[in-house]
Amino acid sequence: MHTLDVALGERSYPIHIGRGLLDDPSLILARLKTPRVAIVTNDRVGPLYRERVQRGLEANGVRVTAVVLPDGEAYKDWQTLNLIFDTLLAERCERSTMLIALGGGVVGDMAGFAAATYQRGMPFMQIPTTLLAQVDSSVGGKTAINHPLGKNMIGAFYQPRLVIADTATLDTLPDRELKAGIAEVIKYGLIRDLDFFVWLEGNLERLLERNPAAIAYAIERSCRNKAEVVAADETEQGERALLNLGHTFGHAIETGLGYGEWLHGEAVAAGTVMAARLSHALGWLGEKDLERAVALFRRAGLPVSGPALGAERYLELMAHDKKVEAGRMRLVLLKAIGRAVVSDTATPEQIAAAIEACCP
Amino acid sequence: MHTLDVALGERSYPIHIGRGLLDDPSLILARLKTPRVAIVTNDRVGPLYRERVQRGLEANGVRVTAVVLPDGEAYKDWQTLNLIFDTLLAERCERSTMLIALGGGVVGDMAGFAAATYQRGMPFMQIPTTLLAQVDSSVGGKTAINHPLGKNMIGAFYQPRLVIADTATLDTLPDRELKAGIAEVIKYGLIRDLDFFVWLEGNLERLLERNPAAIAYAIERSCRNKAEVVAADETEQGERALLNLGHTFGHAIETGLGYGEWLHGEAVAAGTVMAARLSHALGWLGEKDLERAVALFRRAGLPVSGPALGAERYLELMAHDKKVEAGRMRLVLLKAIGRAVVSDTATPEQIAAAIEACCP
Repeated sequence: MHTLDVALGERSYPIHIGRGLLDDPSLILARLKTPRVAIVTNDRVGPLYRERVQRGLEANGVRVTAVVLPDGEAYKDWQTLNLIFDTLLAERCERSTMLIALGGGVVGDMAGFAAATYQRGMPFMQIPTTLLAQVDSSVGGKTAINHPLGKNMIGAFYQPRLVIADTATLDTLPDRELKAGIAEVIKYGLIRDLDFFVWLEGNLERLLERNPAAIAYAIERSCRNKAEVVAADETEQGERALLNLGHTFGHAIETGLGYGEWLHGEAVAAGTVMAARLSHALGWLGEKDLERAVALFRRAGLPVSGPALGAERYLELMAHDKKVEAGRMRLVLLKAIGRAVVSDTATPEQIAAAIEACCP
Repeated sequence: MHTLDVALGERSYPIHIGRGLLDDPSLILARLKTPRVAIVTNDRVGPLYRERVQRGLEANGVRVTAVVLPDGEAYKDWQTLNLIFDTLLAERCERSTMLIALGGGVVGDMAGFAAATYQRGMPFMQIPTTLLAQVDSSVGGKTAINHPLGKNMIGAFYQPRLVIADTATLDTLPDRELKAGIAEVIKYGLIRDLDFFVWLEGNLERLLERNPAAIAYAIERSCRNKAEVVAADETEQGERALLNLGHTFGHAIETGLGYGEWLHGEAVAAGTVMAARLSHALGWLGEKDLERAVALFRRAGLPVSGPALGAERYLELMAHDKKVEAGRMRLVLLKAIGRAVVSDTATPEQIAAAIEACCP
């Protein structure tokens, strides 16, 4: 087991990474103030892992309430969030009850937001079971639900007390989701870690084959990058925005097609290619770096072009993004592989041209 | 104008108290980072004051979006909260837009929760227009909506950047609401300010007659008490819980009758009498102090007994309260006038007896 720390003063917490950690209730037990837990999961992950976690806790005298949500980004909404509150209240969960998010990014975002707002805040833990959640969404305290007009529009910054990434849970992950997770792994290389990008170029096939050592290394290195950025800028006043490379374009794809059509990682891959093309058009990212970035996404089986929504629709959707400030669109762009910047210099025409270049 | 500070480090903010402050946009303008504001109000307060605030801002180049909610505690729910989000998104309000809550406690609680969660947090200000909101709910950062199973169950601690209490807005306040606000004023005397309680005994009629000097003094002294408690314990780990004197009983009344039937302050008055009777039964609060407390509520025209829901139903509703810990009901009780404590020593039988003694 490897352990990293997210250094946030009194809100610091560890990330444990290893195979089979789900079978060790002591990691969770050590952080409980009262013997009371609510597990939030979904109807795909729940049947695979919930009983193991629950039994381990119950064997140690913990009373466990389970909330099983329908699976999918399409359910990341008010109605489904209310299912969590209804159960927490009906089962008399208290402000001191520990909420555990067991599942992928959608479960983590929703359960985290429920924890942030139930009785004005209850403690929570993340047990991510997808690659995307293990390398990105479970770390850093961003929680949210979607609104019909924009992704992750309603939410809170709320840090977990603990993250447990059991790499064995990835054994059952569908290929498509594994690849979607790799999109966020590549992202760390592109924005701030050239050495990691080079490592990925040399080890991508091992990741796709789910080589345990390669997977564990990719998760650990991704989490270390994420933890450093979050520790430096918890609420995204500056550097943390770089983690949104490809996300403004990507959210437009997700919202434009309807939530759940594309996986988040797929939209981020296509969105990152758009951002890279725009960076190249601005004269920032060299031709060769652009090609390396596109080639790596392609080798990972990820989309390198977006759906043909029309550039105008993209711009309209992007204008709702949280990164808009004083009406200017602030985008994460690349100066080189391993060096990202936030910039509002691109004109709508330049942005539209980059989108057109990436749509069939 | 009097100004008090709520000392919370980098989240500190001022409370301005005075007559006619609504006509001075400079107080608001000084705190805007971008010239963009969303005013959230309701259909009773909005027609009285919104235009004055809005015109003053627009005359200074600020773009203002207005959200007008239906009036009343019955609307403090998800559906109405979503009306705020719908408008903020449709009008492209940004993460840097300033949200202004203009109204009573319900508007402040809902608008504050919307601000806490829109794009994971936008800045907000409180312009309370009821006595209850001016002396209590607008200060301290508690925001929430109700759930059918419990009051204020979903919410966040989220501090405003500024509170403006224009005492002239109380001129239009219905008598019933003025009295409801006085319940929270009396609360400060009971929990921590004997001198203020004595002042209230000598000046209650002046408050009921809306004597401007008396009203201003009561608001200022109440806010000073609240600011001190909040500064010492922002997220209610300890002392802040004392501010909930009468609230566990009171919330049971509000939830049990259906939100909006009794005003919050009315339920707090009856709930405080129950807490005082229980304190007396435990041998803590002397007979004379009990009588003084009941007499002051009665002189204010506030209820000193609760609706006849039956003690069992009260206990069931109270068990949902946020103050429950490890299944024990933690209640705010009185050792004397001016000295409150949090205690879980009362048995269900003792609590039930105090409720019965206060129900017709």
